[in-house]
Amino acid sequence: MQILDGKKAAQAIKDELKIAVAQRANEGKKVPHLAAILVGTNGASETYVASKVKACAEVGFKSTLLRFDESIYKTRLLDEIEKLNYDPDVDGILVQLPLPKHISNDEVIKTIHPDKDVDGFHPVNAGKLIQGLPAFVPATPYGIMLLLEHYKVETDGKYAVVIGRSNIVGRPISILLSSNSNPGNCTVTICHSHTKNLKELCFSADIIVAAPGKPEIVTADMVREGAVVIDVGITRVPDTTKKSGFRLKGDVQYETVAPKCSWITPVPGGVGPMTIAALMKNTFHSCLMKN
Amino acid sequence: MQILDGKKAAQAIKDELKIAVAQRANEGKKVPHLAAILVGTNGASETYVASKVKACAEVGFKSTLLRFDESIYKTRLLDEIEKLNYDPDVDGILVQLPLPKHISNDEVIKTIHPDKDVDGFHPVNAGKLIQGLPAFVPATPYGIMLLLEHYKVETDGKYAVVIGRSNIVGRPISILLSSNSNPGNCTVTICHSHTKNLKELCFSADIIVAAPGKPEIVTADMVREGAVVIDVGITRVPDTTKKSGFRLKGDVQYETVAPKCSWITPVPGGVGPMTIAALMKNTFHSCLMKN
Repeated sequence: MQILDGKKAAQAIKDELKIAVAQRANEGKKVPHLAAILVGTNGASETYVASKVKACAEVGFKSTLLRFDESIYKTRLLDEIEKLNYDPDVDGILVQLPLPKHISNDEVIKTIHPDKDVDGFHPVNAGKLIQGLPAFVPATPYGIMLLLEHYKVETDGKYAVVIGRSNIVGRPISILLSSNSNPGNCTVTICHSHTKNLKELCFSADIIVAAPGKPEIVTADMVREGAVVIDVGITRVPDTTKKSGFRLKGDVQYETVAPKCSWITPVPGGVGPMTIAALMKNTFHSCLMKN
Repeated sequence: MQILDGKKAAQAIKDELKIAVAQRANEGKKVPHLAAILVGTNGASETYVASKVKACAEVGFKSTLLRFDESIYKTRLLDEIEKLNYDPDVDGILVQLPLPKHISNDEVIKTIHPDKDVDGFHPVNAGKLIQGLPAFVPATPYGIMLLLEHYKVETDGKYAVVIGRSNIVGRPISILLSSNSNPGNCTVTICHSHTKNLKELCFSADIIVAAPGKPEIVTADMVREGAVVIDVGITRVPDTTKKSGFRLKGDVQYETVAPKCSWITPVPGGVGPMTIAALMKNTFHSCLMKN
């Protein structure tokens, strides 16, 4: 069993970006600039945004963090996004989700200019993805593809089972894995809450991408010897032995599943860091496209 | 074995539309208007466009057919589309594909305003589809969903195999069938040229959607008793006994497969007429949205 080490792969990607950014700076060219918007004080959101800002510093990007109180009016938030849309110095805009209930995610995402939508959530980018056109791919599925690429995991002609049909993970990763590309060219089955024989489907898979958002639902009896397992899940479960009061659990029961796998992602340290590396790559490409 | 009769189902949809359009006209409201663009004189394209114009007449829509010589400049074609985008009387615009080689399909499709893109080919509509937002769904997959709905074919929790990953059929139908909707909620496998065990996958399917564009590749040994088979293929094969010099073949070997099925679409008379009915429904909805 080998580890798909997201920390290492993400570091390699960030190292490459750092060199490319430094070279741009040396040549007097513009350095990528990511603007992040955080509304409210949700603990997980704080952590995610802080990691993204930290990653920007690591690779030499400029970053701006705009924080707003949970009570912000929707119109004010949309105005702030429009300002960033028109700011030529800003290459990428991300709005940390979830937003307070009085603000529609869809409306906010639609307001971000597709050419600065480095999270790849705008319908135009989703549409280009499905049509095989150049697009910002959402960071989590893009990170998974980069991880498979980094470790040269063979995907062509393989049978992949994706658990979960969310807009931000399940759908796009099922499209990417089944696209005519490398990594890609898998035969892909997309499973969800109405799937009847999840266990059998998983057991016949060469590659399992687990993204149902339910801790440890993929167990050893669902995984065949030699499978590749990608665990997208990251749930905080209470743990009084930890200083933070919680620990992170994936959607895969790691202890029992890992011994059967050819490759597996740990949680944490698997898909998570790759998501941030993918966001950095999107922001870098956005800067290249515009400057 | 029962026939998923696309002619009958399409007629029922057109009859409903006809009543709704007549009612609008009685109330002095605007009647839907479809503008179709045909470049060149490709035989199949001529036939398709003629059927669409005829269908408009049947349901009481206004239609405009703009014909251009194959030598038309791209800029001129884009100008003509822009005129239709700005014409408040036009509810739907379709450009019959394929276009001559010197004109990029993608560029033409992107020029059609998403709110008039009744073929559902614009990236914005593709993106909304994948994100589960209201969108114009491409006519062929939408027609298949309408056909399943018309004949009340049970799909929830069923296992569907889609053969083909094209932007206009395979991808969108795999998304629609696996969406949280009715029809929908299938577990869906998308297969393509790199799929290794197509026969076994098909044999385990409750529902097969065949859209590889290769005549009669789905044979009886690939289909289990009681399966639902949707044949999207429509290839002209030479036949000297026919006045036209050709006959139409589906991607399913109908004679041997049909006896095993619970439901099957014939070719012609299956998905084809539904595609046109779906286009009419999209055009009607476009008119409702705007007027």
